[in-house]
Amino acid sequence: MQNRKIDIAPSIMCADLCNLEAGVNNIEELGLDLLHVDVIDGYFSPSMPLGIDTIKQLKTRTNMKFDVHIMAKDNEYFIQEMIQIGAEQITFHLETSNHVDRHLQLVKKSGLRAGIALNPATPLSELEYILPYCDTVLLMLINPGFATDKNEKQVAYAVEKVRDLRQLIDEKGLDTRIEVDGRVSFETIPGLVSAGADILVAGSTSLFAKGQSLEDNKKLMEEKIKAGLYEEAK
Amino acid sequence: MQNRKIDIAPSIMCADLCNLEAGVNNIEELGLDLLHVDVIDGYFSPSMPLGIDTIKQLKTRTNMKFDVHIMAKDNEYFIQEMIQIGAEQITFHLETSNHVDRHLQLVKKSGLRAGIALNPATPLSELEYILPYCDTVLLMLINPGFATDKNEKQVAYAVEKVRDLRQLIDEKGLDTRIEVDGRVSFETIPGLVSAGADILVAGSTSLFAKGQSLEDNKKLMEEKIKAGLYEEAK
Amino acid sequence: MQNRKIDIAPSIMCADLCNLEAGVNNIEELGLDLLHVDVIDGYFSPSMPLGIDTIKQLKTRTNMKFDVHIMAKDNEYFIQEMIQIGAEQITFHLETSNHVDRHLQLVKKSGLRAGIALNPATPLSELEYILPYCDTVLLMLINPGFATDKNEKQVAYAVEKVRDLRQLIDEKGLDTRIEVDGRVSFETIPGLVSAGADILVAGSTSLFAKGQSLEDNKKLMEEKIKAGLYEEAK
Amino acid sequence: MQNRKIDIAPSIMCADLCNLEAGVNNIEELGLDLLHVDVIDGYFSPSMPLGIDTIKQLKTRTNMKFDVHIMAKDNEYFIQEMIQIGAEQITFHLETSNHVDRHLQLVKKSGLRAGIALNPATPLSELEYILPYCDTVLLMLINPGFATDKNEKQVAYAVEKVRDLRQLIDEKGLDTRIEVDGRVSFETIPGLVSAGADILVAGSTSLFAKGQSLEDNKKLMEEKIKAGLYEEAK
Amino acid sequence: MQNRKIDIAPSIMCADLCNLEAGVNNIEELGLDLLHVDVIDGYFSPSMPLGIDTIKQLKTRTNMKFDVHIMAKDNEYFIQEMIQIGAEQITFHLETSNHVDRHLQLVKKSGLRAGIALNPATPLSELEYILPYCDTVLLMLINPGFATDKNEKQVAYAVEKVRDLRQLIDEKGLDTRIEVDGRVSFETIPGLVSAGADILVAGSTSLFAKGQSLEDNKKLMEEKIKAGLYEEAK
Amino acid sequence: MQNRKIDIAPSIMCADLCNLEAGVNNIEELGLDLLHVDVIDGYFSPSMPLGIDTIKQLKTRTNMKFDVHIMAKDNEYFIQEMIQIGAEQITFHLETSNHVDRHLQLVKKSGLRAGIALNPATPLSELEYILPYCDTVLLMLINPGFATDKNEKQVAYAVEKVRDLRQLIDEKGLDTRIEVDGRVSFETIPGLVSAGADILVAGSTSLFAKGQSLEDNKKLMEEKIKAGLYEEAK
Repeated sequence: MQNRKIDIAPSIMCADLCNLEAGVNNIEELGLDLLHVDVIDGYFSPSMPLGIDTIKQLKTRTNMKFDVHIMAKDNEYFIQEMIQIGAEQITFHLETSNHVDRHLQLVKKSGLRAGIALNPATPLSELEYILPYCDTVLLMLINPGFATDKNEKQVAYAVEKVRDLRQLIDEKGLDTRIEVDGRVSFETIPGLVSAGADILVAGSTSLFAKGQSLEDNKKLMEEKIKAGLYEEAK
Repeated sequence: MQNRKIDIAPSIMCADLCNLEAGVNNIEELGLDLLHVDVIDGYFSPSMPLGIDTIKQLKTRTNMKFDVHIMAKDNEYFIQEMIQIGAEQITFHLETSNHVDRHLQLVKKSGLRAGIALNPATPLSELEYILPYCDTVLLMLINPGFATDKNEKQVAYAVEKVRDLRQLIDEKGLDTRIEVDGRVSFETIPGLVSAGADILVAGSTSLFAKGQSLEDNKKLMEEKIKAGLYEEAK
Repeated sequence: MQNRKIDIAPSIMCADLCNLEAGVNNIEELGLDLLHVDVIDGYFSPSMPLGIDTIKQLKTRTNMKFDVHIMAKDNEYFIQEMIQIGAEQITFHLETSNHVDRHLQLVKKSGLRAGIALNPATPLSELEYILPYCDTVLLMLINPGFATDKNEKQVAYAVEKVRDLRQLIDEKGLDTRIEVDGRVSFETIPGLVSAGADILVAGSTSLFAKGQSLEDNKKLMEEKIKAGLYEEAK
Repeated sequence: MQNRKIDIAPSIMCADLCNLEAGVNNIEELGLDLLHVDVIDGYFSPSMPLGIDTIKQLKTRTNMKFDVHIMAKDNEYFIQEMIQIGAEQITFHLETSNHVDRHLQLVKKSGLRAGIALNPATPLSELEYILPYCDTVLLMLINPGFATDKNEKQVAYAVEKVRDLRQLIDEKGLDTRIEVDGRVSFETIPGLVSAGADILVAGSTSLFAKGQSLEDNKKLMEEKIKAGLYEEAK
Repeated sequence: MQNRKIDIAPSIMCADLCNLEAGVNNIEELGLDLLHVDVIDGYFSPSMPLGIDTIKQLKTRTNMKFDVHIMAKDNEYFIQEMIQIGAEQITFHLETSNHVDRHLQLVKKSGLRAGIALNPATPLSELEYILPYCDTVLLMLINPGFATDKNEKQVAYAVEKVRDLRQLIDEKGLDTRIEVDGRVSFETIPGLVSAGADILVAGSTSLFAKGQSLEDNKKLMEEKIKAGLYEEAK
Repeated sequence: MQNRKIDIAPSIMCADLCNLEAGVNNIEELGLDLLHVDVIDGYFSPSMPLGIDTIKQLKTRTNMKFDVHIMAKDNEYFIQEMIQIGAEQITFHLETSNHVDRHLQLVKKSGLRAGIALNPATPLSELEYILPYCDTVLLMLINPGFATDKNEKQVAYAVEKVRDLRQLIDEKGLDTRIEVDGRVSFETIPGLVSAGADILVAGSTSLFAKGQSLEDNKKLMEEKIKAGLYEEAK
């Protein structure tokens, strides 16, 4: 497991939204190739960071892969839009879908990676039959979209849930990746990586932490990731 | 009526959404000061051009006034957000509001200009009691958000509806302004202005028409506006 | 028109909700026999003054007639409930009903008086074909259920709308009654009565005004009503 | 106006739904060529007479033109389905559409006749700008889908509403046809025709009246139509 | 377990919908007595095969038992309708019900068999407390109502899910029957039966397979069922 | 476990809703200090016992703690209202919340006790990660709000579900309390208490049983509780 590759997926929400092209190019120059793109509709939760047309245009200005995270009431519509835009990975919330298998297949038949996102309180038992068909499972570690409150903390059961999911995946011999989103910080990275996280959505408490350059933050993240991998290897 | 001031309100949807700051500054340098900002939620109609956070950031990068046009199912939420962002004018659709008076007052009590938007088929009789409290009435001249089909034409009754609204406003001695949105083009501007339009939402068929500079397009628009005013004065 | 009988309909929302029986009996002893009962569901607008079971029990403790004003998203359900409770008049909002004629008939076939309520901005043209079948039309003069803000004023077009409706009713030779609701105060009563109001929903700015007894307030209301009738007769 | 052609459109709901092909062929043999097809979704009102797949198959078994009347919450979906099936005329309810112009155009761009249906209480003023683009306006004369109660009567203002609509159409010099639906009976036909109805939806109180053959009923309808035309001509 | 009786439930969707009576009689003559009736509302998924009135009439023309499978957003309404029609078994989807126990009891108190249907991705843990009260559990093996795509395959975990459910039922000593729906074909029947399926919804890949008579298809199904039972007995 | 304190929480729905203050004072004089307050919105299920304003006023007339049980579609709104009113414990239904963790935290950050309510059929696996953060879990033992049918019985798996939850709580070493609601009667109390229930919602089959005084009923309840505790201790 020492050879696990951990991905850093910077969140587009932390870029300068009025100079997205430059912002994303800066990220790309760091050598990162996976951009986490949040699509929130204002109804799933009271937030709407950026629009579909914006994402569409941005897709033509960068070589980064788009890791789209849909937080919406109408998965069908937003998944179709993101397929057309050419996203590389599309993740949707299980809580708003009565047709989870359909939506997974909709993405996969388009040749893209498909993921399911779970809110903090949603149990892993929901994945009973579909885990093998998820390229990624995204675990929300804070409640999505409600609070801009910077004091809001990661849920206390974050590491436990990552570990449980890792065990499930390993038991079934799958290569499903675990993505973690919400206060993924220098402090929490070692524990999350050690517990089994593969993709770290990076925001204001890591890659975009103030007071340091993106490059320095990236290096610090990588150190923390190594610490987590080392811990796990023990 | 010769002294009527006609405003050109460039639509943000026509700017480069990945370089919004530069795009809006270019517009500002033309001497235009009213930016038309479309907020569509994906449910009112299947479109979502740009997000709330994007608009929020943009508000701090320009001196242009924000003329926000909300096309959403939940007017209450989006109006509150736009008030917080500091928009100068907020327009919402009457078709999705059971509390039209409340929403008008919500905007006006915040010290902002308030407008009501009407879809093409919506009759003016809906404005019976509230017209005097509208700073602006926005008439949609195409169906909002459905078609990216460039062949979609302005509704045939566009000029008639503008003229009817102008008559209503004049009869009541009001200073409500008429805003027109949808295929406002070099061809249609004279007729719309002559019929009584005050604010022209400018998009791909006028200010952003391809093959000419923004500056040239602006000049051509101004000529067409003059032609319309001249026609009206006759 | 001098013989017009004006009814005072005290709003149950102003009674002591923990001692409703006594509160309503106090009102009854004033010689008033029409109780205005607000049913708000929390979704039509963010308010829910009292419940269905409460209303049901209250109906058995008083001889007052129940003038129920439903402000709800699902008129069908609440109308059926209010019919079962034995309300004497049931009024529902046109804005939330696609089956206005059906809902009117539903009430009338039960042998009860039926009314339609209109939010402030809703035009009277909506009543084109059904006015003759309305026993009452209730005009909301403030936005229902949003503000507990005591500073919220009656809409500026209140008297104008009452007068227009009166004219419509008289032209058609109908005996539809006009009910007014929202900041019906000592100050506004003469104008509203003079314009044509028949039923005055009485709340915190009239019958329940603080600093005076219910009885004194009632007398003052009656004086104001007389002033209005006198004005009208001129 | 004596040359007006009045169409009888038998309602598919009155056919034997388990032997639709034979039922429709019987109707076709009467020389009638317009079949009224009700599509109700159970949510617009509590009724769902027959399904989309049924209609699709039936379209291939008869030469009758399909006059589809959609009573649904989601006009967009059902209109698209009916276009694909190849209906000749598609009518939808204005009460459930915020995009009336869009829906009209959606039908017309497909080369089909487009109609708007109005519930009994809906005023004609809603048609202010779109009447010229309606091939047909369907007036519901009972409340659609609620009552199987055979005692439910046509609304009292049925003839008045038809007459008002006829006047509107004639004033504008349009060839929009007026379709009437709901208790169109031997008794009511003369009045409706005389008032201006062009298409009569025929159900259990006319073409399918019990005790007589379809043929006899058809003849009787034709007599009643003539009586109406004669009355009008006076 | 060799004595298990496996039922073939032909899907009404495969009958000639314009000659339903004859179609169902043909099925009945095969000696089959359980008709699978799909009720889809167009909102649960984009499909609406046949209507309530059609089902109602059909119930009087055949002696077959109706095994109704409701796929709808409003279970309460459709269950009530199906009870009134006299269906013998009513199955509804757990994914659209917040009141699963209530809906089960609603059916059972009417003296009918009650079933719960699960979409492919829905875990069996949802049945924790109610399995003993289900006469049937229907497992959807394709996504219901979305695709007419004949290439859509049964979900890969179909047999596994049937086997898991069989184990649950056997462990609790229940006589709940397992119904399987979706690409139940000659190829898949042995595996499904062997895994524990009791009722096979038969459609275009089995009983109604083209190129052979219903009778021959039925015989082939029976052979495949025997093969499955033999396999299981090993 | 002998020292477990069992609470009796009388349901406000059983008080005289027109004399709530007196009714609640009578309860308070019994020495009970926890009042169970049902908030149903008419949409979660067809019932609306009492309103928000009523609850608000009542809060100022008694020293009893308010144990609010929200049964609503919009948890966000009702939780916020109940926090403002000053309820001591707020319980909401997991079935209508996609943001369970958020809603728990919303209550807890206000310094109040937070609970999750489960409908009868909802499995305990839904609590996988959040059980440690629930001060209370309320198990509905009848279907909430549908039936006023006095013959409706407690679900057969009531005791089993309480026991399973008790085991879960004990295994994790938590002090989460188990509240039971629905036909908690003299007959069922011993079994429920013995299985692990901590808070008994008391209604018409216990504290408010007819034919005996509240005091006598309370004594009988206490005896039954003791019997349950004795049974458990064995």
